[in-house]
Amino acid sequence: MRLRNKPWAEGYIKENSAIVEQTPYERKGSWNSIFDKEQPIALEIGTGKGRFIEGMAMKNPDFNFIGIERDKNVIVSAIDKIKEQEIINAKLMHENAQDLRDMFAENEVDRIYLNFSDPWPKSRHEKRRLTYHTFLEQYKSVLHDEGQIIMKTDNRKLFEYSLVSFSQFGMKLEDVTLDLHALEDETNVMTEYEEKFSNKGQPIYRCIASFK
Amino acid sequence: MRLRNKPWAEGYIKENSAIVEQTPYERKGSWNSIFDKEQPIALEIGTGKGRFIEGMAMKNPDFNFIGIERDKNVIVSAIDKIKEQEIINAKLMHENAQDLRDMFAENEVDRIYLNFSDPWPKSRHEKRRLTYHTFLEQYKSVLHDEGQIIMKTDNRKLFEYSLVSFSQFGMKLEDVTLDLHALEDETNVMTEYEEKFSNKGQPIYRCIASFK
Repeated sequence: MRLRNKPWAEGYIKENSAIVEQTPYERKGSWNSIFDKEQPIALEIGTGKGRFIEGMAMKNPDFNFIGIERDKNVIVSAIDKIKEQEIINAKLMHENAQDLRDMFAENEVDRIYLNFSDPWPKSRHEKRRLTYHTFLEQYKSVLHDEGQIIMKTDNRKLFEYSLVSFSQFGMKLEDVTLDLHALEDETNVMTEYEEKFSNKGQPIYRCIASFK
Repeated sequence: MRLRNKPWAEGYIKENSAIVEQTPYERKGSWNSIFDKEQPIALEIGTGKGRFIEGMAMKNPDFNFIGIERDKNVIVSAIDKIKEQEIINAKLMHENAQDLRDMFAENEVDRIYLNFSDPWPKSRHEKRRLTYHTFLEQYKSVLHDEGQIIMKTDNRKLFEYSLVSFSQFGMKLEDVTLDLHALEDETNVMTEYEEKFSNKGQPIYRCIASFK
């Protein structure tokens, strides 16, 4: 998804420093200090327009949510949602997460959400997929021992790839769902993509995996 | 699938002792001796009418195939296929495989095929699913260290269950396919069920897992 360039976005991100952490690398090990309450941290990689983090933060007040989004034209919509709903347990960062270990201490994170990540279908781009083993190494480092990765996608090939990648890395699959919306799981919060694809009748895949 | 009772089936199975091993428990550790050539053994649990074992044996002359089927009314069709095609690298047994460890020595088997197994959808029947951990223990024992389990099914819930069960048992997923026929894999041999469900447009799931 490419949005029209918003020249005002950079400024808007800086103005909203109560919602967008401006110096995330300096927060390593002390993320809880920017929240009202010290509680488990859930990280969403690729927050997009923020519908998932908005819904999840409201439904789960006992978690602190952090959303990473690299596209300035998109993150501004997420800022607006958090502002409008006066959500205090969700923060954002405008970063291209190169290495999570530079931003989070070991065991600092309790859950990682990967929602509708770019499938990078060509084999030569395998290294860019967020479930490639170099990313799994990062997740393992920043996640708590009991922590989970919760992945949703509509992309069959990315999902097949990821199940094998998790398994080959030595991770355990805790739950696999090949048609999430057939479940009628009321705790599920949809992303913008998810609603679009699901409305077209495409199955949504979900996997919960751990390093236990 | 329930077929009409064939009162002649018992006799037919006995007559065809060149194809149906009559004393499988006595073959433990020496299965290769009933075949022309000593070569890796592939076991199909629930051979049905035999279309898969027939096709696989013809395409893979460097494997010895053994098919287990407990329904006498069904196995007779498998006997006929092996006979008609004069297949020498496929044998059958008419058994309700209670414990494979009574029939096969450790490491005697190189591959196990689970094709369209009964999904046993009710939770109270979980123990009967062929991917329940007690079955995985049997497979682990009789399979060679590098051996694989290759599972195909059209049943989404059984497949979801099995992926988690394999993983929780410590097995590695080598390959996962959520729409086998989209692959156009020419090495795939269809079962009777598979053709029926696939023709209806239902996806066929396949997983290759190992104990490595």
